[in-house]
Amino acid sequence: MLIVGELINSSRKAVAPAIEGRDANQIKDLAIKQVEAGASYIDVNCGTFVIEEVETMEWLVRTIQEVCDVPLCIDSPSEETLAAGLALAQANGKKQMVNSITAETHRYQAIFPLVQQYNTKIVALCMDDQGLPETYQDRVRIVDNLVSNLIKDGIAADDIYLDPLVKPISTGHTFGKDVLDTVSYIRANYPGVHTICGLSNVSFGLPNRKILNRIFMIETATAGMDSYILNPLDKEIMGQLYGAQALLGMDPSCVNYLKAHRRGLYE
Amino acid sequence: MLIVGELINSSRKAVAPAIEGRDANQIKDLAIKQVEAGASYIDVNCGTFVIEEVETMEWLVRTIQEVCDVPLCIDSPSEETLAAGLALAQANGKKQMVNSITAETHRYQAIFPLVQQYNTKIVALCMDDQGLPETYQDRVRIVDNLVSNLIKDGIAADDIYLDPLVKPISTGHTFGKDVLDTVSYIRANYPGVHTICGLSNVSFGLPNRKILNRIFMIETATAGMDSYILNPLDKEIMGQLYGAQALLGMDPSCVNYLKAHRRGLYE
Repeated sequence: MLIVGELINSSRKAVAPAIEGRDANQIKDLAIKQVEAGASYIDVNCGTFVIEEVETMEWLVRTIQEVCDVPLCIDSPSEETLAAGLALAQANGKKQMVNSITAETHRYQAIFPLVQQYNTKIVALCMDDQGLPETYQDRVRIVDNLVSNLIKDGIAADDIYLDPLVKPISTGHTFGKDVLDTVSYIRANYPGVHTICGLSNVSFGLPNRKILNRIFMIETATAGMDSYILNPLDKEIMGQLYGAQALLGMDPSCVNYLKAHRRGLYE
Repeated sequence: MLIVGELINSSRKAVAPAIEGRDANQIKDLAIKQVEAGASYIDVNCGTFVIEEVETMEWLVRTIQEVCDVPLCIDSPSEETLAAGLALAQANGKKQMVNSITAETHRYQAIFPLVQQYNTKIVALCMDDQGLPETYQDRVRIVDNLVSNLIKDGIAADDIYLDPLVKPISTGHTFGKDVLDTVSYIRANYPGVHTICGLSNVSFGLPNRKILNRIFMIETATAGMDSYILNPLDKEIMGQLYGAQALLGMDPSCVNYLKAHRRGLYE
């Protein structure tokens, strides 16, 4: 299971002041703690700093790399910001991740050259020129399009992380099931291609959101999702993830589950 | 989702003295509370009273029926006890459940006439003359055998509740996954046939058992399991069940989830 730590994101109230005030120690601390808690990638997003997003991204990438050599997930709506972040991130010698490409013609054409130039992994979000997917069938159409284009353009299956685009079940009661069915479809039709998502959208508008997010993680993992963008410092979600994997047969002798128990994830 | 309340069971330390001492009020209270908490069936098991099991079962069935008219799940290794319980349970006019038949030749021949005579639903446990299943393939073989025999003998698909037989993942790391795959197999090959299980075996020998049991409920529900034998007074497991159903698209407008929230299941 691949965990992308989501905490270094300027849309998070607790983190925005540290980014705005260039508090390098707090950013470094967040990076180190996420890696220690199990993150294989660190997401870096400063999309709320619209005007100075490039400069902010560069500061974040440099700051994180002073203390961590895990690869980064450079996350932005702006191709300039992605390019700036990727150029600096190469310093760690790892394969970074771009978050994200879509099947929108303009976005695909703008982002794909960066993926190619920097030889990155790529989060491919299920939306296209028709907009956000509404149904399972929409997602399948977009998945087919995205995967065939990425493969045709030379990207290895193992570098593709499809995000089915999670919408709130409060706005459509099949939106959770549609994601699960999309994950099953991808597993059956594109073995080797990964699936990824953030969890919090699914519970928007409902009470007890953290509980719903954790349940949805277990459901998507059961359907075959193998990567998450989440907060690895949330003991409960990490505990549930190790438990889910043990029960899914992914943890021989329950080694990782028992380690998580000894680390206190279930206290 | 069909919930069979599991609390009236003489193997439970908190309940055994009430059964032994014929404390009718405590048994009635347990029955009422389980129904109020969402049980559609009440399991009745006094298998630890080997010598006077028949008499104890009769007392329990009479006692429960003084306060509840939900159908009962008569649960015993002994055909005499099942017969005695079913004969009295008819008083409520509902379709009872027998727990359980298996594909063992002797057990099938002994129990099937009771199913037929009393027109019950039936929990069909995945074991046969070769013993407990070891692999997924063993379960599929037993499922095929059980379903074809039950259907041939005139039982409606809707009255069959296959129990894949949950073994501890501490004794075999694929034992959880094997159950999930068996549930998927049953859903794909025998539409209309139900699946059921108890949850606690899966976590035997591991720490944080309640957490594992709840995760396994979510995983099996995602695979398509539609019935559980569980403790409906456990707020957390019931809360997770309503959340899981909302995320699986089984709860339009999240009506039941929001009701569960208002009932305090997530506090």
